[in-house]
Amino acid sequence: MKTSILAWMQEGSVTIPSLLISEYRSLKLNEYDLAIILNILEYAHKGNNFPTPEELSSRMTISINECTDLLRKLIQRGYIEIIEENSPDGIRYEKYSVEPLWEKLIEQFLLKQQNEKEMSRKSEEV
Amino acid sequence: MKTSILAWMQEGSVTIPSLLISEYRSLKLNEYDLAIILNILEYAHKGNNFPTPEELSSRMTISINECTDLLRKLIQRGYIEIIEENSPDGIRYEKYSVEPLWEKLIEQFLLKQQNEKEMSRKSEEV
Amino acid sequence: MKTSILAWMQEGSVTIPSLLISEYRSLKLNEYDLAIILNILEYAHKGNNFPTPEELSSRMTISINECTDLLRKLIQRGYIEIIEENSPDGIRYEKYSVEPLWEKLIEQFLLKQQNEKEMSRKSEEV
Amino acid sequence: MKTSILAWMQEGSVTIPSLLISEYRSLKLNEYDLAIILNILEYAHKGNNFPTPEELSSRMTISINECTDLLRKLIQRGYIEIIEENSPDGIRYEKYSVEPLWEKLIEQFLLKQQNEKEMSRKSEEV
Repeated sequence: MKTSILAWMQEGSVTIPSLLISEYRSLKLNEYDLAIILNILEYAHKGNNFPTPEELSSRMTISINECTDLLRKLIQRGYIEIIEENSPDGIRYEKYSVEPLWEKLIEQFLLKQQNEKEMSRKSEEV
Repeated sequence: MKTSILAWMQEGSVTIPSLLISEYRSLKLNEYDLAIILNILEYAHKGNNFPTPEELSSRMTISINECTDLLRKLIQRGYIEIIEENSPDGIRYEKYSVEPLWEKLIEQFLLKQQNEKEMSRKSEEV
Repeated sequence: MKTSILAWMQEGSVTIPSLLISEYRSLKLNEYDLAIILNILEYAHKGNNFPTPEELSSRMTISINECTDLLRKLIQRGYIEIIEENSPDGIRYEKYSVEPLWEKLIEQFLLKQQNEKEMSRKSEEV
Repeated sequence: MKTSILAWMQEGSVTIPSLLISEYRSLKLNEYDLAIILNILEYAHKGNNFPTPEELSSRMTISINECTDLLRKLIQRGYIEIIEENSPDGIRYEKYSVEPLWEKLIEQFLLKQQNEKEMSRKSEEV
């Protein structure tokens, strides 16, 4: 029993900003985009920073080709990017970065905050 | 600046078992099911334990009717359930429970563990 | 087995800003302050927003009186505060708020960022 | 503003089992042990799997010598261990593992569950 609970625990968890779940639609993402992003985050959490379309597709209800296509569009539209890094022993490798997505999410958050402020100001004026 | 970071922080985050992200397909869920479940968890985190199809649909790319339909199917197939509770002042209210989903996820985890054990046993016999 | 894993899962987890762990000393807090704050957060997570010194002390290595004393000092020094709220049925109740602590943590973060910027500017000038 | 929120976000958070916070005392740990363990987890989260007593002490209210002493006792008493691993390019390195702590926490959880079951059985018999 102890072993099973430990193994369950070691599968771990991913902590996601609430706003990604509540605002992905406002960011012009759909449910497939959300699922692919969550899987990129989950793979990164397990140490795989550049999952292949095969790996991503194996966990999703879409084909490898559709996965490649989704990834390409997310990169073109500026949600994720491929960056190059050097390992300690000097080997270059590629990894996905979701930093552009976080920037968009923060922009959306600031916009929402400003709208709410204006709405509360207007309702006070009435 | 301080106020903005505090407001950002207060939006909070949701901690999700990694296995839900990597195994939803094995559980016969699709990307819309995943997104609706994440939104139910996110609403619960904010204190709303029984979001309406309107509330869920407003964050998703699907219509209210499609949302109602998805919820009904998730209940029929035994992933989520509606339970009744009493508030401290005796008023009955309904809420979603995702406990059945966690049970399915644990079953899937135990099955996967057993398969891996058998595979490693077989590869040792060879 | 399934029941045990489910029970383990339902104990849940608390997500804490990394900076609270790495900067509590810079915020002039000690290890007892940190532990009491973590327990206030953990009780809140379980729905108890105003744990008594008895409840807090029962989980710590200090006496109820020492706990009362620590809480009083944290309030006096502006890390936590007691706020009053109304329940839906109009009953007033008290709860701890750690918002002042988050504000201090954000101030510390902004200060650290500024220092790092100045240090990197100075090292460029040399 | 966007840059500051992004920097704040990238500081990240650490997700800790609620039971570690509520049960460290039952595990015969004190507040210094808890703080050192949280810092080991936080350093690991940032990619440093073998923080030195200097690094740990710099975040705590205790001296480097006291830190070394605490670490030694935690290892002797079987809460953390030092394990050796090989990097992809064959270099051996040491890291802390808190797996023994999780095992003790799970044992404590199972014990507590059993006690509660017995107490509810006894109260039914009365």
